[in-house]
Amino acid sequence: MPNTIKRTAFIVSDRTGLTAEAMAHSLLSQFPTIDFQIETFTFIDNNDKAREVVRRCQSILQEHGLGPMVFLTMVNDELRSQITSAGVEVFDLFETFIGPMETRLGVKSSHTIGKSHGVQDENAYTSRIAAMHFAMQTDDGMDSDYYRKADLIIVGVSRCGKTPASLYMSLHYGLYVSNYPLTDHELEFKRLPKELTAYREKLFGLTIDPHRLLQIRQQRYKGSTYSDATTCMREIAQAESIFRTEKLPYLNTTSMSVEEIGAMIVNKTKPVKRL
Amino acid sequence: MPNTIKRTAFIVSDRTGLTAEAMAHSLLSQFPTIDFQIETFTFIDNNDKAREVVRRCQSILQEHGLGPMVFLTMVNDELRSQITSAGVEVFDLFETFIGPMETRLGVKSSHTIGKSHGVQDENAYTSRIAAMHFAMQTDDGMDSDYYRKADLIIVGVSRCGKTPASLYMSLHYGLYVSNYPLTDHELEFKRLPKELTAYREKLFGLTIDPHRLLQIRQQRYKGSTYSDATTCMREIAQAESIFRTEKLPYLNTTSMSVEEIGAMIVNKTKPVKRL
Repeated sequence: MPNTIKRTAFIVSDRTGLTAEAMAHSLLSQFPTIDFQIETFTFIDNNDKAREVVRRCQSILQEHGLGPMVFLTMVNDELRSQITSAGVEVFDLFETFIGPMETRLGVKSSHTIGKSHGVQDENAYTSRIAAMHFAMQTDDGMDSDYYRKADLIIVGVSRCGKTPASLYMSLHYGLYVSNYPLTDHELEFKRLPKELTAYREKLFGLTIDPHRLLQIRQQRYKGSTYSDATTCMREIAQAESIFRTEKLPYLNTTSMSVEEIGAMIVNKTKPVKRL
Repeated sequence: MPNTIKRTAFIVSDRTGLTAEAMAHSLLSQFPTIDFQIETFTFIDNNDKAREVVRRCQSILQEHGLGPMVFLTMVNDELRSQITSAGVEVFDLFETFIGPMETRLGVKSSHTIGKSHGVQDENAYTSRIAAMHFAMQTDDGMDSDYYRKADLIIVGVSRCGKTPASLYMSLHYGLYVSNYPLTDHELEFKRLPKELTAYREKLFGLTIDPHRLLQIRQQRYKGSTYSDATTCMREIAQAESIFRTEKLPYLNTTSMSVEEIGAMIVNKTKPVKRL
């Protein structure tokens, strides 16, 4: 008997599949003993494509004796019923709630293709793009003259995750996020540079486990002082000391994804979202 | 009687709330006649925070005679039951499916805090960050010597959405995505530059409605030739002509969000994901 149970899961959507993917991954992560083989089918928006998904379901059923678990977000009734009658277990992430919501709200749903990931509001869209350009322009300490326009300025040592966090937050939340790398000089004297002291209320520190930092730095700069263990430990200790002395909010990013870091910073700082 | 019905919706999560937010927005978008006031409560991971959410539910119930619709993703049974017994309608996005999944899989769920947005695999995480750095390095035609490392090269006129799409795809899918702006010279002679011809199979075109392009360009460069209607129309016609002549796959981004553009490109090109 093998130790790991293997199972197939399908994510099927008539649009981008982003919502279905987020939900299915959350649900599947609750069953860590099972090794899921996940296949994603997006833009399943006509009969031919739906039939092809049904065929894939049935071929897996025949091959393994067990069909895939299907996680579905699909608005069109006809296409949806093709999938739900494929003879495999379907978790209908969308329709399960639409009925009860209609009852509760006292109106019928529009049953149009879900627009949640489309552009609902051109101003909001333009804000996100403008925010992203701002984040790129003020990445890594560049163009610090623009800090007065920033909603947040992320501070930390090199390679602790500032740039990904800034870009993600700008794209997802439409926030103007700059980031500033603490230099040797600032770390040694344990003080904030003058570029930052005027914007103390916008600052947010990132830190990371020194061993993880070492790992990240060694991938690109193996052999330099920058990527030895002593330097990583010293820099992190100095940066955290600055955060504490200056009473900056800060976060340890060691085992966090970009999405988690972004959500945590928003949760801790409650910036006024521009969307 | 007012024409628009207003309703309050709460999104409540013990973690980042990203999954709950995606689902709730998809579901609510099916009721376009209702004006939802959405409040999001993230990291509700202890009794005090849960009680505060319950208090907010009840104050809205008292004020409006109708409580908020609550969209919930919460793993801890005790905290969840605090919310579900608040006397308002709760759509339990998570628990609704966990029971049926346990039956189907024949194992109990771990009921640990959902890890779906955390770092599950450090290699995958590192790949996404490396991909993002690659996208920034090869943004806007820079460092085209690195195109051999790219999974995709997005091509189009200035301000048609290349940079946001490249960065989003790198962060979300871990793909190495470069982008190249078609210059006046290339547009006029309707041919691909030599930097691109060697990588034809990696190219993907973006186009946009000329009126929307005009709007975007005028926000930043009002008054220049670059942002007049004739230029926008001419450039788009020339770019699309290049895409057709060179038989490149391409997409009109006019009313699409960054997430949709990314999902569509992946759907059309089926690149080998690195995650």
